[in-house]
Amino acid sequence: MKLWEPDALNLPLGYRYSSIYAGIRKTPNDDLGLIVSDSPAHAAAVFTRNLVQAAPVHLARKNLEHTGGAARAILVNAGNANCATRTGDAVALASTKALAKALKIPASQVLPASTGVIGVELDAALIPAAIPKLVEGLSPDRFEDVARAMMTTDTAVKTSSRYVDWNGRAVHVAGMTKGSGMIHPNMATTLGFVLIDATLEPKHLRAMLGDAVESSYNRLSVDGDMSTNDTVVLMANGASGFTPAKKERQVLAGMIAAVLEDLAVQIARDGEGARKLIHIKVEGASSDGGAVRIARAIANSPLVKTAIAGSDPNWGRILSAAGASGARFDPRKVDIQLQRVPVCRAGLAAEFSEEEIKKKLDEPECRIRFSIRGGGKGEARFWTCDLTEKYIEINASYRT
Amino acid sequence: MKLWEPDALNLPLGYRYSSIYAGIRKTPNDDLGLIVSDSPAHAAAVFTRNLVQAAPVHLARKNLEHTGGAARAILVNAGNANCATRTGDAVALASTKALAKALKIPASQVLPASTGVIGVELDAALIPAAIPKLVEGLSPDRFEDVARAMMTTDTAVKTSSRYVDWNGRAVHVAGMTKGSGMIHPNMATTLGFVLIDATLEPKHLRAMLGDAVESSYNRLSVDGDMSTNDTVVLMANGASGFTPAKKERQVLAGMIAAVLEDLAVQIARDGEGARKLIHIKVEGASSDGGAVRIARAIANSPLVKTAIAGSDPNWGRILSAAGASGARFDPRKVDIQLQRVPVCRAGLAAEFSEEEIKKKLDEPECRIRFSIRGGGKGEARFWTCDLTEKYIEINASYRT
Repeated sequence: MKLWEPDALNLPLGYRYSSIYAGIRKTPNDDLGLIVSDSPAHAAAVFTRNLVQAAPVHLARKNLEHTGGAARAILVNAGNANCATRTGDAVALASTKALAKALKIPASQVLPASTGVIGVELDAALIPAAIPKLVEGLSPDRFEDVARAMMTTDTAVKTSSRYVDWNGRAVHVAGMTKGSGMIHPNMATTLGFVLIDATLEPKHLRAMLGDAVESSYNRLSVDGDMSTNDTVVLMANGASGFTPAKKERQVLAGMIAAVLEDLAVQIARDGEGARKLIHIKVEGASSDGGAVRIARAIANSPLVKTAIAGSDPNWGRILSAAGASGARFDPRKVDIQLQRVPVCRAGLAAEFSEEEIKKKLDEPECRIRFSIRGGGKGEARFWTCDLTEKYIEINASYRT
Repeated sequence: MKLWEPDALNLPLGYRYSSIYAGIRKTPNDDLGLIVSDSPAHAAAVFTRNLVQAAPVHLARKNLEHTGGAARAILVNAGNANCATRTGDAVALASTKALAKALKIPASQVLPASTGVIGVELDAALIPAAIPKLVEGLSPDRFEDVARAMMTTDTAVKTSSRYVDWNGRAVHVAGMTKGSGMIHPNMATTLGFVLIDATLEPKHLRAMLGDAVESSYNRLSVDGDMSTNDTVVLMANGASGFTPAKKERQVLAGMIAAVLEDLAVQIARDGEGARKLIHIKVEGASSDGGAVRIARAIANSPLVKTAIAGSDPNWGRILSAAGASGARFDPRKVDIQLQRVPVCRAGLAAEFSEEEIKKKLDEPECRIRFSIRGGGKGEARFWTCDLTEKYIEINASYRT
């Protein structure tokens, strides 16, 4: 078996992609994207747990329930979340129907997804009018065009792929995502689409996706607090001709998790206004859940994030954030490392060169390691970004 | 009975105040404050619920337990939190002992409080060395000097007072606070000291303080997530010669709550980098607790806070924040007002003049009203501030 993490994108077989400017966003950049599997495919999805859910979330969930996990297409738009509007359901339905007609597939096999402003009516005519040209533009090479079309405040296209070869029997996994790694991503829409060309049953897709999201998007402070539109879809079309057995499915699950982790880290790196990606590692907590609580509290602390922005080794803010997390631990047994330099030992200041660590903190990636001596086996990784003036600038004027 | 909300500070009898520069902070502004009751007094306090607690928090709690609620003095410093240091306990104890000796009172009747950076050793000699001059400077007129000495990133002295007269029997309540109304105040130290000149038993003080903090500081996103040093003390010395009966205690409880609310609002208004005070009112929730959850989620949302900074009536962010709060409600029954203008009706965009509301949002105070139609009786008020570039600037360089 050979596992590949290709330098360039390595796309699964049997999918085509397209994008177009449908007039939804003000700037004339493509705002409508399409992913189609050439053959019948299975899919699983996880959706926002926000009480307020956008129309496309309702419809995509309903479609997957209706088909029992059969899906052929993902239709995604940026520029309008199609949420909290009078016509939301009708617009989502009309869009999927128009696409289904053009592709000659059942409308229930189209999964819609939207991102953008909430509470502004989405003109019902725009998407159906764009569909003929969108379908016309379908090509196996336009994966990145879809990734670009769904960007909002993202500054970079985010894609990732993996590849495995079992004596000539190859399976490809490729994913794309959008999201801007907010300081509190409960209101930043995250969309993620992962495609694989093995044959996989919906129940296996659901399990693989659930596990993979748990260790990736849910370690990005997304978790229970999601936006109105968050959607991650995993689709499998069998175009490789390969139906994995249990052991092979485990390998594929690992590849899917790796792709989703890579995408999640890209979101944190491209956080709105962020200059630095922050990796957080917590170990020695009484449970993994406790470690996640601590890691999330550190990741969510604007005081920690501004300190990192200012290259300030202010470990007291890290300790205090952890102390307020609700997880139980003995603060006198905590060691903290910044950029692999011990700054706190047993809850007290370690001796370190302020100058040296400031220099290390100027690097584009920051590592925070929070260890509890003699603690339990609970550990967690988490990703976030620093908090800069630019974040304010972006968000004080996003809507208008 | 006459209730007064005086324009100028109206101080309780029998207290004296002092402040001095003890060399704790770098800039030569007073950093050590003292409040002394001339006669034996009672006190109650609430402290941070952070797992990581500063040495003065430990000692103040211990002292109150030891004396059963007797206290004569509050000794407060800024510039160093005396937290997560090797010598913290010894420094706090030595400081209270030195003061007790100078005042000829038991050391257990001194309540220490500190605010400033965490994890930096506080020179044990500084406070004891400053105490003789500090005590020498005691005066009934220096209330505001103490309020000023405990400021950190605060830009304004925060005090409030109330006054009641029952046919010539007068009682005064005055309070001071510091705190910078962070976007996530779980790591911003809040100190608050409220003094009254009635005679009140410790058990009554505890109940009055608990209720008053619940509807003031705990509506400022402080709550369960507090800093390592948060401390609010209520002290009563009986210098007015008045011992209130039950009904009068209820009046006094209301006055104390009003003073604490006024102080809490001042903290929000002086939020780090804030240009706008935000009042949040939630009504129609299934319970008061549910209303608080919704209000806190709105108050904690950086997307809402940056929208307000930019005078952007982006009510979708408010609805989404509420939806992610964990409280249950029907989004289609939500009305939202901004500056008393309906912007969302029944979960949908209301018709409003964008220009008019933008102008109203430029005002220094912003009112968000979130109502659930036909909902329960749960309601809550909450205070926060907008999130501006200045916040980042302050916090990226606070320590160094």
